Amino acid sequence: MNLDKFFSAKSIAIVGVSPEPAKVGHIIFSNFIDAKYGGSVYPVNPHIDKILGRKSYPSVLDIPEKVELAIIAVPAEASLKVVEQCGKKGIKDIVMVTAGFREVGNYELDRKLEKLLKKYRIRCVGPNCLGCFDAHTGLDTLFLPRSRLQRPGKGGIAFICQSGAVGSATMDLAAKEGYGFSKFVSYGNAMNVDETDILEYFGKDPQTRVICMYIEGMRDGKKFLRTASKISEKKPVIAIKGGVTSEGGRAILSHTGSLAGSAEVYFGAFRQAGVTKADTLQELFNYARIFDKSICACGPRIQVITNGGGYGILSTDSIIKSGLVMAKPSAMTLKELRRRHPKVVTSNPIDLLGDASTQMYRDAIELCLNDRNIDAIIVITLYQTPRLGTDVVGSIIELNKLSKKPIITVSTGGEFTRILKMEMEKNGIPSYDYPDEAVNSMKQLVEYCRGKGICK
Amino acid sequence: MNLDKFFSAKSIAIVGVSPEPAKVGHIIFSNFIDAKYGGSVYPVNPHIDKILGRKSYPSVLDIPEKVELAIIAVPAEASLKVVEQCGKKGIKDIVMVTAGFREVGNYELDRKLEKLLKKYRIRCVGPNCLGCFDAHTGLDTLFLPRSRLQRPGKGGIAFICQSGAVGSATMDLAAKEGYGFSKFVSYGNAMNVDETDILEYFGKDPQTRVICMYIEGMRDGKKFLRTASKISEKKPVIAIKGGVTSEGGRAILSHTGSLAGSAEVYFGAFRQAGVTKADTLQELFNYARIFDKSICACGPRIQVITNGGGYGILSTDSIIKSGLVMAKPSAMTLKELRRRHPKVVTSNPIDLLGDASTQMYRDAIELCLNDRNIDAIIVITLYQTPRLGTDVVGSIIELNKLSKKPIITVSTGGEFTRILKMEMEKNGIPSYDYPDEAVNSMKQLVEYCRGKGICK
Repeated sequence: MNLDKFFSAKSIAIVGVSPEPAKVGHIIFSNFIDAKYGGSVYPVNPHIDKILGRKSYPSVLDIPEKVELAIIAVPAEASLKVVEQCGKKGIKDIVMVTAGFREVGNYELDRKLEKLLKKYRIRCVGPNCLGCFDAHTGLDTLFLPRSRLQRPGKGGIAFICQSGAVGSATMDLAAKEGYGFSKFVSYGNAMNVDETDILEYFGKDPQTRVICMYIEGMRDGKKFLRTASKISEKKPVIAIKGGVTSEGGRAILSHTGSLAGSAEVYFGAFRQAGVTKADTLQELFNYARIFDKSICACGPRIQVITNGGGYGILSTDSIIKSGLVMAKPSAMTLKELRRRHPKVVTSNPIDLLGDASTQMYRDAIELCLNDRNIDAIIVITLYQTPRLGTDVVGSIIELNKLSKKPIITVSTGGEFTRILKMEMEKNGIPSYDYPDEAVNSMKQLVEYCRGKGICK
Repeated sequence: MNLDKFFSAKSIAIVGVSPEPAKVGHIIFSNFIDAKYGGSVYPVNPHIDKILGRKSYPSVLDIPEKVELAIIAVPAEASLKVVEQCGKKGIKDIVMVTAGFREVGNYELDRKLEKLLKKYRIRCVGPNCLGCFDAHTGLDTLFLPRSRLQRPGKGGIAFICQSGAVGSATMDLAAKEGYGFSKFVSYGNAMNVDETDILEYFGKDPQTRVICMYIEGMRDGKKFLRTASKISEKKPVIAIKGGVTSEGGRAILSHTGSLAGSAEVYFGAFRQAGVTKADTLQELFNYARIFDKSICACGPRIQVITNGGGYGILSTDSIIKSGLVMAKPSAMTLKELRRRHPKVVTSNPIDLLGDASTQMYRDAIELCLNDRNIDAIIVITLYQTPRLGTDVVGSIIELNKLSKKPIITVSTGGEFTRILKMEMEKNGIPSYDYPDEAVNSMKQLVEYCRGKGICK
């Protein structure tokens, strides 16, 4: 399904732009103004003449130009008439923000909308959704004010989200953490554009490196399985399923009106399709971070380098519990490291101790990168120790750029640490707060890369 | 064991204060100066006359006053002589920051130190440790500069930590998140003051509400079991065990020289002693947050109130998976809520929908607080929605103050959200990032409160 217009339409009508600033249509329109969107944007409201200095149109039929995308934010009762007008105007793509359909038991309105969409061959994202966001083009139908929800910069993470809140709040958090997005869709009731259609489209999207999904229900499991299997060969797909318990499943009915289905069937499908399963939102975001930034790991043998012994021990426990393997660095690596830094604990973990210096990190990482017994490196940098120069960040970034093995980092701390973590992140290295987050994310990377034929 | 002097000594000697600012002794001394510590602080270094404008003493024996606590930060070889002098001076409490004992295989030095401590009846925190921090008195032996490791404010969380890095980095993070501490000890090799001695002392400490522990090894399990059982009746004890795998256990030997022991034995002891087990550092901190701030939950029946449907569903899944129970609010509660706000989804979760207002939250929470079918409430507030006033924070704080049930919150987001979360935290309500963090923390609270006879 060609969804180009949902992310880069050249002319857009927003139907239901109220003069009241807290109303949905108003926020959507002002987001386009604020973002200085590169296409024509037409506000539609028959009761006013002007809005934010722009001419308001009585209906989409009155817009002089061809319209490529309509965003509909009128009450449910009024929405069918608007869709009819869109059809007559020849608009083929609409985002239906309006709620009040299947999810509140209004099945009749549902059927009528479906019929109209069929009649005019309209692709519809929604109803009951936030719609679409594209960090690269600036198209943004999210009715959440920019002052409250920070939009992420341009990047490689895409999010397909049945629930608006789950996706948008995560995107807001990701933006704060310095992560860039490619595209975002909240598709709500999935009337005739569903998760799989969007997945397929994102699979081909050159800006998208990793695809995150939050799924409540699915109408066509086979279609998903077929598509996801294909896409996951090319780029990682991470999915979290809402309603994996029967109690959670019941709550879905009043949310997006979907049928939750059996969790086991979903998990089986994820496995079969090579989709990475996340059990929590935090996992979803953590996995997206490593997939977005890291190169493939060619095996499960992990080396830990640390300046805090306890962190080394907790990382080791976590690696073993996750099913990854503690690498056994070669005798040469350890001997050379000991020669250069006699006090260092040379095994795995390599413990550079509390007086670790940047040079010690450089040497340890470099030796491990050249050691064929090691597939990936988790570097723990606790920036609180007085001897460690802040240039350790630059050194690790530099080594990572030349590296053929993934390097990820762990640092826990306050403001001083936060700034250095951001620097690390901005330069392509995930910096997790806790050892187990890093290890479990690395585990997913190793699993994903396995059998992809990327390594020799 | 009376450990008063480790946290509020009136006269302190710091032995090994180098003029070089990055050296351990220097940092410790300047931390006391910066904190304007309320007692006398004497730097000791025979090679200099003055340091930071203060007279330096050749040895502790030259200090004119009685010394209550010595902090020793000289190299291992020189440390025994210093301890001998401390003994002669009549100092009964020392913090031995110095490393280079058992943990590097130097068992002989270990034995000599032990003998000396016995001879002079000296209590020793360390060696190979960061030592002590008291947020209330300002006593602070941590050799981590304040510019790099933020000290937390006064509060109720205590941390007993065998590894210096684990505790101090977590404390730094906690300080950033607005959490206050009572006391902190990194006790390293646990020569003659061990985790149980400190636990017992913290058990009696009126400023300490919750005790966190990071344990690598233990010499006297029975003593721990006996003490922890007693303390956990009065205040929650949360413990994380490092080295729960055999690989992790091996790493411990070169860290604090402890024997890791069988994880199952530890976990069994935790269970038996009423100690809350954390599997990760994040769990440890998350559990401390709810124990620090919340009143007891009198049962496992949880009500979820949300303005994001997907968050409600994920919370429900998490509650069921954790073994907690979804509360069944009374018909009266739901009827009254429906009467006031007809569009709201009234069951559990209560979904106030994307246009939730502060009044809707107030009404929903108030009704649930008065509902005898509900033991605790998880309130999800996604602040990104345009209709939700920021006064919702104040309203929840107000309701929580009068409440006899624990209320905790969940909010995910960027900068706008972060500020409101901090406001919530500052006023006694934990505000987690993700639903499962809140649910799993609530689970620990419910477990801890069970059978304590606090509820009728």
